[in-house]
Amino acid sequence: MPDLPLSVEWKAGKLIFLDQTKLPLEVVMESQETALQVYESIQALKVRGAPAIGIAGAYGLLVAARPYLQQGKEEFLINLQKEADYLDSARPTAVNLHWALERMMAKAKSLEAQSAQKIWDKLEEEAIAIHQEDIASCEAIGRYGQELIEEGMGVLTHCNAGHLAVSKLGTALAPIYRAHLAGRKFQVYADETRPLLQGARLTAWELQQAGVDVTLICDNMAAHMMALGKVDLVIVGSDRVAANGDAANKIGTYGLAVLAKHHGIPFYVACPYSTIDFHTPTGSEIVIEQRDPAEVTHFGMRQTGPTGIQVANPAFDVSPHELITGIITERGILHPPFEKSLQGKS
Amino acid sequence: MPDLPLSVEWKAGKLIFLDQTKLPLEVVMESQETALQVYESIQALKVRGAPAIGIAGAYGLLVAARPYLQQGKEEFLINLQKEADYLDSARPTAVNLHWALERMMAKAKSLEAQSAQKIWDKLEEEAIAIHQEDIASCEAIGRYGQELIEEGMGVLTHCNAGHLAVSKLGTALAPIYRAHLAGRKFQVYADETRPLLQGARLTAWELQQAGVDVTLICDNMAAHMMALGKVDLVIVGSDRVAANGDAANKIGTYGLAVLAKHHGIPFYVACPYSTIDFHTPTGSEIVIEQRDPAEVTHFGMRQTGPTGIQVANPAFDVSPHELITGIITERGILHPPFEKSLQGKS
Repeated sequence: MPDLPLSVEWKAGKLIFLDQTKLPLEVVMESQETALQVYESIQALKVRGAPAIGIAGAYGLLVAARPYLQQGKEEFLINLQKEADYLDSARPTAVNLHWALERMMAKAKSLEAQSAQKIWDKLEEEAIAIHQEDIASCEAIGRYGQELIEEGMGVLTHCNAGHLAVSKLGTALAPIYRAHLAGRKFQVYADETRPLLQGARLTAWELQQAGVDVTLICDNMAAHMMALGKVDLVIVGSDRVAANGDAANKIGTYGLAVLAKHHGIPFYVACPYSTIDFHTPTGSEIVIEQRDPAEVTHFGMRQTGPTGIQVANPAFDVSPHELITGIITERGILHPPFEKSLQGKS
Repeated sequence: MPDLPLSVEWKAGKLIFLDQTKLPLEVVMESQETALQVYESIQALKVRGAPAIGIAGAYGLLVAARPYLQQGKEEFLINLQKEADYLDSARPTAVNLHWALERMMAKAKSLEAQSAQKIWDKLEEEAIAIHQEDIASCEAIGRYGQELIEEGMGVLTHCNAGHLAVSKLGTALAPIYRAHLAGRKFQVYADETRPLLQGARLTAWELQQAGVDVTLICDNMAAHMMALGKVDLVIVGSDRVAANGDAANKIGTYGLAVLAKHHGIPFYVACPYSTIDFHTPTGSEIVIEQRDPAEVTHFGMRQTGPTGIQVANPAFDVSPHELITGIITERGILHPPFEKSLQGKS
């Protein structure tokens, strides 16, 4: 388990984010004082990763609610709902932010007989519970998933679904950490993950810190590595899994799913069960966030594309369920047909 | 046809390269005075693109030969061969550099009865002929290839096999320029092409300058664009085509070939006939250049990967002939079975 700062921390009533945009060169902790700051931190990807932004949203609602604590409970609940809707709008694709804020609001509404401060105190317990449950989920995902990783394998991952994206072990990286702790030797390939390089900056960094044997590659090298026989397993995270098993994840994941199929390599998605969105029947209903063209035309402060060029910058893509070997959750590894297995039916 | 500076120019006995590492922000022309400078310019990708480095090598040999012009013809030819071998070692994958230098040396050897200066004068004519033939090849590739591009299509390309990589029209971009000049409207998607971003810096730039409708994407977005139905055709260049049709090209090309097949999209390679290397039976015999890890861990001067991380940085990959719909050359579009069609048999 890597001895790294937590991406989201709630400490004596203070919300602290590790500013992931500054990694791997600087480790900067940033205290979150207002709803606006939390919103902007999520939007700017200072905190990112589907489960982490759920946890950040839950704690963020506590920060957002503080100015209303002297209000009557009705007014308080109205303002709480406004702040939850506001935070929820920071990023559209991951279901976890929405899920966590909905859970917080359901809790708040169940307490409407109480004072604003009492409601807030219970919401703090709820946010901590969400966080603790996530840690437990990651543990279980690691336990189930580690069996897939055998001595001598090559394991490819994309973006960052690790410690920095979630809690402690992460999701896609949890099986990797577990197999590493069990003493198995294997090689991880980390896609750098353009445009924001979460693979290079975050995954390569956290695995390196933990002593895992990791090699950084550009996204467009994955196919070549597969052709060379260096990849035996792909594990990625997910921001939203539809009821039929279609999985949204960082842009580039879908291409890997196709490449894995072409090369006969198992392709697994790892995520907490709460990532499954039964209100979304298939992947085609998942809203794909389009981000700032400057992420593609610039690199840090340096311009790399021509001035005025048209850009597409979808932040996510959808891997259809036919390309997914299994979905690793805290309830076990779910296999096709996903319509049944996701619902807990066999 | 884009009104752009030439990537390689021979002007009154002076060899001038457009320094492509500074594009698209600066247009810098650099005079090449010594063999060392030519070697380093090719290695640093100031001049790049398979046909262009062939032409650069041919002219470069003239620059390299100048210090030996006062020598006797035997000594001159020995030193000429040494310089040719030296220049040839600048980059291992593209066949064109080797091909051009071999052609120059064959010419020199056919003239061994002459003085050093006479040989040099004839070699100058030969280098100019190589350059002119390349321009004519690109014209013909454009003429044959433009028929593939219909009104309203989406055309994906990777790296830069355009004006900057070759002569005037380029190879992969020649059909695009021709279709554009014919007044057809279509959308080009340019992969940015990590790690050195030839797609973002060069292809997006030269197509934009020429008024072609071009959209820049990250490499890992190509699959998503295909899934959305936005891509109807893929055209890429090649650095070496084996006798069986397997084609080496910039890293990432092989992944596109697999993705194109999965989506039922035609996948074409465009290159001069001289790119076909009948001494290389299949793609597995092609040497893949491994480049500096810093290209992957850094971006310009900025470090983006963790210090000390392991990196793979293959500069090329091989697309097997089964994934290639056709090879567009100045002799027409060659189709499978390539063992026959590449040899000119039907």
